Parts: sequence; structure tokens; C-alpha cells
Amino acid sequence: MTEYDYIRDGTAIYERSFAIIRAEADLSRFDAEEADVAIRMIHACGQVEAARHFVFSPGFVEAARTALKNGAPILCDAEMVARGVTQARLPANNEVVCTLRDPRTASLAAEIRNTRSAAAIDLWGERMAGAVVAIGNAPTALFYLLEKLRDGAPKPAAILGMPVGFVGAAESKDALAENSYGVPFAIVRGRLGGSAMTAAALNSLARPGL
Amino acid sequence: MTEYDYIRDGTAIYERSFAIIRAEADLSRFDAEEADVAIRMIHACGQVEAARHFVFSPGFVEAARTALKNGAPILCDAEMVARGVTQARLPANNEVVCTLRDPRTASLAAEIRNTRSAAAIDLWGERMAGAVVAIGNAPTALFYLLEKLRDGAPKPAAILGMPVGFVGAAESKDALAENSYGVPFAIVRGRLGGSAMTAAALNSLARPGL
Repeated sequence: MTEYDYIRDGTAIYERSFAIIRAEADLSRFDAEEADVAIRMIHACGQVEAARHFVFSPGFVEAARTALKNGAPILCDAEMVARGVTQARLPANNEVVCTLRDPRTASLAAEIRNTRSAAAIDLWGERMAGAVVAIGNAPTALFYLLEKLRDGAPKPAAILGMPVGFVGAAESKDALAENSYGVPFAIVRGRLGGSAMTAAALNSLARPGL
Repeated sequence: MTEYDYIRDGTAIYERSFAIIRAEADLSRFDAEEADVAIRMIHACGQVEAARHFVFSPGFVEAARTALKNGAPILCDAEMVARGVTQARLPANNEVVCTLRDPRTASLAAEIRNTRSAAAIDLWGERMAGAVVAIGNAPTALFYLLEKLRDGAPKPAAILGMPVGFVGAAESKDALAENSYGVPFAIVRGRLGGSAMTAAALNSLARPGL
């Protein structure tokens, strides 16, 4: 009879995971607050090497934390990002919004000649003002967000730009870093990113620590 | 005025992404069906190098595809995995189940002295027989699944063992590969894995191609 030897206590697993990450990852580029966020992002992807691609603009963590404390909504490009947010960590029972499956998205996409992920952003409307925006899946959503900011859309409090993939992901994040229209941001440079890393960053911003 | 140059057509983005992956990834260890699944998993994580950690047991793809065609439910350890499954790809309007937020999970976890992710599996019950099981988050869920199979639980048609992380992830997947109790399986060896990769594999198994 096979016996499986493993830790069965959730808190102990988290503690050991974060200790391994602190021991193995190079977090020297980050201040203490950024490192907290970085550790959760590393935890979500299982790779300490990912940290070298993380960029936090000055004041990003503070801006996102303050916005969340003050009740800002979290606007997500993908259902997986929204679903990855731990409700119990949110400091103000913040609304978590994903408009991708809104029935208007498909026709809007045809109208603006872009993807449904991009079109979904048009449905955020005035909620964008002061929100925490989390793009964890679609480069087109991030590009379209930048076009909207360029054209005078209401400014979010902070942007997490972390789409993943091979076409447009790296480019969209570089574009955000080059000109974020004054909004503090966090990105993962290159192809890495994704809904898990983005949700992990949101969960850390919502409440530091375990 | 900044102009953003990017592909705005979803299908074109997918096609180009998959072409890049085919050009860059070493898929020589896989047969054509396995390669299809592998490409989607690579797409989800943005890393062609991840392919070297993928293991498909003989007959896995066929077993999972057949089960889904015949209406098997998909049993997931995490909400993010369940949410990542594209309903429109499912061949038989298959049920996608995640019991993690079931109100009974917390007390069950205390009873079995394990995590909520493990306890949630106890609520799958007879649905495990012939199901496609997808563990994309918690190593404890995969270990506990193995304990249940060892103890005579109903056998799934196929198991996707892809938890991510630093504590127990590699070990739980090694344990599945060493003895899967006769169930065909796919794993991502080591620390890599996660809900996005797992959902991507499910989406490919549900319907090949774009």
C-alpha cells in the first residue's frame, strides 16, 4: 500500500512556498512592498526566474493599494483573472468586473474591428476612472486600453499589464511601459504573464502577507 | 499621436501564435495528437521550453477525447481551471464541476485533516467514474486523488495532473506518473503547471484545432 508523504496544512504550504521563493529568487531590484507582490506572482507561475521580467513603475503598489482600500473596482480582461481574485482578501468588498461575456461584446467587436477582449473594455465606461485595471490575457485588450487612454478615456488608478503569449504580448507591455498616460503600472516583460500571475498580483495588492 | 500597430483579428492571432510555436518548440517526442495538446499548453504559458516537461501516458489523448465525446463530466480542483474551459468547444455540453466553494468543503477539510482543495474531491463521489479529472492548482488535491484511487475510488477516464508551485507540485506529479492506478494521464513535470495550462489542455482535448 503506497503511503504519500506530503504537507496537508494550507498555511504551512504557503509559508514554505514563500520561504523557498525568498531563498531562490533575486528580489534585489524591488523594494519591500514590490517584493511582496513579486513573491506571489512567482508563486503563481512556479518560476523564480520570472522575477527578472517584472517591472513596477514608481508608486504603483501604493497607488493600487490605496485605490482598493478606497473601494475601487477591479476591471479584468478575462474571466480567469476575475475568478482568481480571492474575495475575502478585498479590503472594501470591491467589485470585480469582467465584461467579456456581456451580450453586447460580439457586435461591439465587429463595430470596432478588434477582438472581443478589446471590445469588452468599451463596456467599462466611467468605471475606468480610479479603477484598478488588470489585463492578464489578451494583448489586444492592453493595446486597445492604451488607445482609449490616448483618446482621453477616464484614467485608472493603476494598470496591471500582464497578457501572455506569442503575438503582441511583449509589444503591448513595452508600449504601456513607454507611455502609460501617467497611470502607475506593473508589467511582466516578454511572453510571460497570464491570468494566474495577474490574479496573484491583485491578491497581494488587496492584502499583503499570507 | 501614438499609433499602435497590432493584429486585431482573433483568428489571425491564434494562427500566427500556433505557427510560431510549431517553428520554435521541440515537439518531436509527441505524436500528432499529443502535439496539438502541447501547442495549446505552450500557448497558455508563453514558453516553448515548457514542452520538455510535458508527459502524456500512452493512450491519454484518445481516452480523454472519447470520454468527452461520450459526455463525461470535467472535474476540476480550482475555479480558475473550470472558468478557463471554453463551453462552446465541449463536444457533449459536458458538465464542468468544481466543488471547492461547496459549503461542506471547509468542515470536510477539518475532518480529513487536509486542505480544502483535497476535501473538495470527496464531493465528486460517483461522478469520478469515467470522468476527465483536471488538477491545475493544488498538489494536495492530486495527492489526495491518488490516495482515493489507491483506496478503491471509482476510476476516471483520464487525469490531467498539472498543479503548479514549490511545495509538493513536482512530487505529486511524479507520484501520479509512477502509479496512476491504470488511469491514462498527462503531467507537467516539476514546478510548472497551473490553471491556464490545464484549461488549455482541456480545450484542446474537447476540440482539436483552432
